[in-house]
Amino acid sequence: MSLREELLKQGRAAKEAAQVLANLSTDVKDKVLEAIAGKLVNSKREIMEENNKDLKAGEAAGLSKALLDRLTLNESRIEAMAEGLRELARLPDPVGEIMEMPRRPNGLQVGKMRVPLGVVGMIYEARPNVTIDAAGLCFKAGNAVILRGGSEAVHSNRILVQAAAGVLQEFGLPPGCIQLVSKTDREAVSILLDMHEYLDVLIPRGGAGLIQRVINEAKVPVIQTGIGNCHVYIDEGADLDMALKIADNAKTSRPGVCNAVETLLVHQELAREYLPALFALLKKKEVELRGCPRACQILPQIKRAEESDWHAEYLDYILAVKVVESLDEAIRHINTYGTKHSEAIVTHDYSRSQRFLREIDAAAVYVNASTRFTDGNQFGLGAEIGISTQKLHARGPMGLKELTTIKYVILGQGQIRE
Amino acid sequence: MSLREELLKQGRAAKEAAQVLANLSTDVKDKVLEAIAGKLVNSKREIMEENNKDLKAGEAAGLSKALLDRLTLNESRIEAMAEGLRELARLPDPVGEIMEMPRRPNGLQVGKMRVPLGVVGMIYEARPNVTIDAAGLCFKAGNAVILRGGSEAVHSNRILVQAAAGVLQEFGLPPGCIQLVSKTDREAVSILLDMHEYLDVLIPRGGAGLIQRVINEAKVPVIQTGIGNCHVYIDEGADLDMALKIADNAKTSRPGVCNAVETLLVHQELAREYLPALFALLKKKEVELRGCPRACQILPQIKRAEESDWHAEYLDYILAVKVVESLDEAIRHINTYGTKHSEAIVTHDYSRSQRFLREIDAAAVYVNASTRFTDGNQFGLGAEIGISTQKLHARGPMGLKELTTIKYVILGQGQIRE
Repeated sequence: MSLREELLKQGRAAKEAAQVLANLSTDVKDKVLEAIAGKLVNSKREIMEENNKDLKAGEAAGLSKALLDRLTLNESRIEAMAEGLRELARLPDPVGEIMEMPRRPNGLQVGKMRVPLGVVGMIYEARPNVTIDAAGLCFKAGNAVILRGGSEAVHSNRILVQAAAGVLQEFGLPPGCIQLVSKTDREAVSILLDMHEYLDVLIPRGGAGLIQRVINEAKVPVIQTGIGNCHVYIDEGADLDMALKIADNAKTSRPGVCNAVETLLVHQELAREYLPALFALLKKKEVELRGCPRACQILPQIKRAEESDWHAEYLDYILAVKVVESLDEAIRHINTYGTKHSEAIVTHDYSRSQRFLREIDAAAVYVNASTRFTDGNQFGLGAEIGISTQKLHARGPMGLKELTTIKYVILGQGQIRE
Repeated sequence: MSLREELLKQGRAAKEAAQVLANLSTDVKDKVLEAIAGKLVNSKREIMEENNKDLKAGEAAGLSKALLDRLTLNESRIEAMAEGLRELARLPDPVGEIMEMPRRPNGLQVGKMRVPLGVVGMIYEARPNVTIDAAGLCFKAGNAVILRGGSEAVHSNRILVQAAAGVLQEFGLPPGCIQLVSKTDREAVSILLDMHEYLDVLIPRGGAGLIQRVINEAKVPVIQTGIGNCHVYIDEGADLDMALKIADNAKTSRPGVCNAVETLLVHQELAREYLPALFALLKKKEVELRGCPRACQILPQIKRAEESDWHAEYLDYILAVKVVESLDEAIRHINTYGTKHSEAIVTHDYSRSQRFLREIDAAAVYVNASTRFTDGNQFGLGAEIGISTQKLHARGPMGLKELTTIKYVILGQGQIRE
């Protein structure tokens, strides 16, 4: 069987499974999630053995320490995956809710019912925990899922999906509910991008290269995730201490994630006081600053930023710094260079806070808080499958509700249209 | 300037205009809509003159009577377009609403604000009134719009957009708010499909050929609209009179639209009684029936349906008819052949009505009413830009709210993440 035939077969199986899943009771779904959690914990040894194969191959292939760390499944990480599934089981089921049901003048009741999307395709890279997170979220929201993980995690992903498949079988559920693409080569991605007959949505999670390829090739509706060139703007008159803490937290609490800040903008009135303090604070954490000409005047020891720095998603201990003349310039800069992910202002001024909230075009816009909060758990969604940076369907962290759609349900008593 | 350069220039102008539009007050937007309405009414003569050029060209090109009718702008149709704009002005502005704002344990207020999508691309065919409807809806929802109408309506579309442009200028608004693509050749569509830097969404309205092309080529997020292979299922024990009226209305009240029924399914228990009555009723209206083998046994005078009939969107006085053994068979048939548009059951049975509502996968699912109600006005949305048959972002009739997205707005007091 060619890879295409195999994937089309998986697509058909997923579509059939999706019809079963759409009508599964919450009780059964939650029991399945808890059973998978139990199975993961009981299979720790086998999972770690398989994971070890990936780690050895990764070392041999010269993966960076950071990548090898992301790839690693130890006891506590397996426990954390299982706990994630148990938490999902405790979250309310979004499916089946009828949200509103106004009565029309002719007596028709026109309601909106929340229903699963159908079949979700996930394309992602190194981290094997995404396999379980995504499978659990899709399952709870009543969707079948086809997972295409990275080649680095192939053994880990296989054993994790096997564990889930065993539980599905125990419950008499079709294996099409949760499937892993057997091959991890690029061709598999191309075929998935083409499978609009079977996939209702594709969610790519990974670097800019993957996302761009998906946008260029996909015939399936796509939800873009995760590229974050985020900004913090320090307004004139801002509380200096708050402005330092927020910038520090947004940059250094976890520099490798998409909601970390990459460029700091500071109002010219505050720059002379603020920038040296920021420099001193971030120097301790070995953050490299790159400045605009005015920032370099104030901090002659730092490197000059180039045009490419304003576009950069460093995901590293680097921060670009720019002095701006006004809120207008800050808004213009962010709307020009930002990736519409997370943007923050630190200010004491009410009307400027309101302008920032309204005029910045991004998934999450903050007043006086760190951009690092853009996250499903932090926003109270319970869990997330990714952070959408596009505008269609879902924007920002995507939880269970964002994995559903609606259908109109209309109750009549024989109404016909004139 | 090449067509591509021209379109990219329009894209840039739209993107700039979108920033202005996103922050325009409801008052100004409503005044602009009313002014465009006034201008249309005052320019009736010129509009009809330009429309006449299109009609003459259409006649020369041998367009069908139905198409020529759809192309025609007479006094009352111009009045109707103007009245549509005035109605839009009276609808509530969706933009800026903050829908919910829970307080998180750390004191952050996390809210969702409704905001415009940005730049909308519309690709549509013959009817020039779509130009004004789409421009008005996009404008009220705070979006810039790039309109690519059909070649048949080129003169009409130009004068209509000119009227709108004149009003925009009077109000000091950028012309990028509402733009028409100057060329109507296929190349213009290809370029639009590629313009993901400038367009936030593309909405194609037209035949299956256009929709398929858009799905295959688009790099811009697309909302599919309008293909409707709709079904009415007559359940055992249904009220015969209601079942006849609903089938008749769904087929003959306007056969050329997407929410008209194309296949009727009837439970075997009722078929012998129902089908002859249906045949007699629809014969008067010159509807051709095409039946499955069992339907043809009952009605030997009708043509046999072929496999392609179950897939057909006739948009004509033709109805495929199939006798089914059970509700299960009806659901399976609809979920196999339907286009996920509008599906109806006529029944007296509570539990079967509930199963139909839950198990049918479509944008609008009806109990005891005609499928013809799937329409923005009928559902109480006020106006619609199309009917989405996909699951992402919007499903069913799309009104003003469906032309918006959300952004998270987060109010803090210096919170940082641990």
